This record gives sequence, structure tokens and C-alpha cells, in this order.
Amino acid sequence: MEEREISQAVISRLPRYFRYLGELKDEGIERVSSQELSSIMQVTASQIRQDLNNFGGFGQQGYGYNVEFLYEEIGRILGLDRKHNLIIIGAGNLGQALVNYVNFERRGFLFRGIFDNNPMLYGKKIRGIEVQPMMNMERFVQDNNIDIAVLTIPKNEAAGVAEELIRYGIKGIWNFAHVDLQVPEGVQVENVHLSDSLMKLSYNISRFQNEK
Amino acid sequence: MEEREISQAVISRLPRYFRYLGELKDEGIERVSSQELSSIMQVTASQIRQDLNNFGGFGQQGYGYNVEFLYEEIGRILGLDRKHNLIIIGAGNLGQALVNYVNFERRGFLFRGIFDNNPMLYGKKIRGIEVQPMMNMERFVQDNNIDIAVLTIPKNEAAGVAEELIRYGIKGIWNFAHVDLQVPEGVQVENVHLSDSLMKLSYNISRFQNEK
Repeated sequence: MEEREISQAVISRLPRYFRYLGELKDEGIERVSSQELSSIMQVTASQIRQDLNNFGGFGQQGYGYNVEFLYEEIGRILGLDRKHNLIIIGAGNLGQALVNYVNFERRGFLFRGIFDNNPMLYGKKIRGIEVQPMMNMERFVQDNNIDIAVLTIPKNEAAGVAEELIRYGIKGIWNFAHVDLQVPEGVQVENVHLSDSLMKLSYNISRFQNEK
Repeated sequence: MEEREISQAVISRLPRYFRYLGELKDEGIERVSSQELSSIMQVTASQIRQDLNNFGGFGQQGYGYNVEFLYEEIGRILGLDRKHNLIIIGAGNLGQALVNYVNFERRGFLFRGIFDNNPMLYGKKIRGIEVQPMMNMERFVQDNNIDIAVLTIPKNEAAGVAEELIRYGIKGIWNFAHVDLQVPEGVQVENVHLSDSLMKLSYNISRFQNEK
């Protein structure tokens, strides 16, 4: 299937399609129209048709989409048809929460190693994986075909650690540190800036109250 | 100051301006031009001017922006000039990580109560706050002027708990459960869908590798 250049806005919506299609599939539903998807997802039917057309269009007029086929195809586009090997840097509460989150594994994201700079944590097991000192990272990344590093470390350490990891061959960084990372072409970064999200919520609450 | 209707895209960028301006302020820098902001933030200068114009425009041609003034104003727009009282539902690893995150408090987001359905956790203290049974929520929300609820519970419980909280008078929900919540007008929801973010990273890695 040919894929055109797709905007990040469309890509941001794909996981949500994937989630809803997965639920329909689990309920044993075989076909769904853009109108039906529209009503459960609270997105216009024309937006759905436009989005899915980016991938060559899976639907047939008046017949709807094949749920399982569309689910599998979107999964493939999202790169979920292959396994990803992850390490996490920072074994604090957030790091532990992520390692313990079973859904990631179900989607093919496998935590292989956990690193921290705190000697008190060395050897501690989180979901069967031992926390190691960060000086072991280079060897580990290369020996275990690691493609994604998750950063749950303070912002002042993040840039240096990211640079190191990129040198070791990491292809993607899932960044929870509250800082924007500069990376070379070919390395992908996805940020989860929790404070930014909370401020956006605060804005919307204030805004609504000022309007009243 | 008059505020026009502002798009969610602009609002999404405000916390980032706030973060960079805070850093400039901490470095003792008093004025900054849109060109300088542009180069540190990796956004075009015209985007910056456009975004800030939404709020009446704080800059003067050829003179730049007053860092402290702009920082304070954006903070005010984001609703950070007043305190928010938060409760968190779900005292697992993620819940604990959020309660322990000191930056939220610095921005005026104060965790007041922690609730869980697991009796093993009742009485456990996280940063000095005791975990309580969820049946105490109604009373607690009303007695403590709680405006934001943070949901770190499984997706199948989230809709029911959100409905309850809205009945008790919650104004905003920071939702980490992997489900979209339906809420009445006047209640704001901000989602942190971690799986979606990880899938987006996976997409960008695959995409890059296919292009090579």
C-alpha cells in the first residue's frame, strides 16, 4: 500500500482510531460505517473519511469499513506489527509506573532494562527487571537491540543522557523530562510534558469561569 | 485586557512559552525579541508574534518583549495566578508519582486528598497525605473546595468515577485512564493517553526507517 506524506495531526489521531476499532473488534463487530464511527468517537464522519483516505481509503461507499482489516492496517502503519525493545532511564515512581503498565507489552513495547544513577536502587527488581547503573547503558543498548529509550529523569540531566543514548544507536526517545530535546535527523522524540497538560486544563477551567 | 476566542492549538503552545520565559527570567534576562525567542524555541518568529497577538500583543516593534511581564501575563491567562485544589483517584505507582512531583505545587496545584478502592492502601501516607476510601470523596470534595480531580484508575472504572465527581462539583478532570470521557458543558477534561503517545513515537520510527 502506498503511503503519502501524512500530517502529524492525522498521526496524532491514529492511535485513537486504533483504540476504538480494537474495542469494536473485541465486541465481535465486523463492519462499521463512517457515520457509526463518527457517533462513538465524537468526530465528524467527513473527518474520519478524510483521515482514513490518507492511507488509501479502506472503505467502500455504502458498505462501511471492515473492522478487523482496518484495525490491522492502522496497527501496521503505527509500527505495531513488530516488537520494540525499550529501556527506561530513571527508576522513580513514574519509571516504575510505566514499567508496570501491562498494556504497553500487549502492543509490542517490551521493557528490557532499567537504569538509574542512585546506588540505593541497583539490584531492585521492577516486574522482574533489575535496576542497573547508568554506566551499563552503552553495552546493554548494543547487546539487546534497544530502539526506544524512555526518559523519566530530571530536566537538567535529560539532554546529556539523550545525547549519550543517541550515540549508542537509540532510534526513539519517549521523553517525560520537562525540557525540549535537540536531536539529529533520524532520531524521533515524543514528549509527555505533564505540567503543560495540567496548565492547559487550568486555562480551560479559568476561561469557562470568566465567561460565566 | 480583552481576550479573543483562542484556538486550542495556541493554548497548547502557551505552557511552552511560559516555560521558556520562566527560564529567561531565572537567568535575569529582562527583554527578549521574537527573533531570540524563535531561535531558542525552534518556532518561527512570525508564529510567536501571531500567538502572542492573541492576547493583545505585549511586544513593541524593535524593542522586544518584557520577559517578566509576559511571563506573569501568560501565567495569569493559564489560571496560575490562583491556587487549585486537587484530589487524585488511584494511589498506584502513577498516582504516587504525580503526588510526589514538586513542580505542580510550585505552579499552584495542590494535592489535598488521595483516594483508592484498595483497603490495603487506606492510611498509607504519600507526601504526608493519607490514602482514603473512595466513599469519602463526596464529603471531601465539598469540604475542601476541590476543583480538579486526577484519574489514575483503570479505564473500566473511569467513566463511573468521573460522573460521580462531576455530581460533587468538580470543574476539571485530568484523565490518565485510557478512555475518552463524556462530560457536561462546564466541566473540562484534559487527557494524558500514554499509549497513544507511545504509538505516535512508534509510527515516526517506522516511517523514518521505511523512507531510508
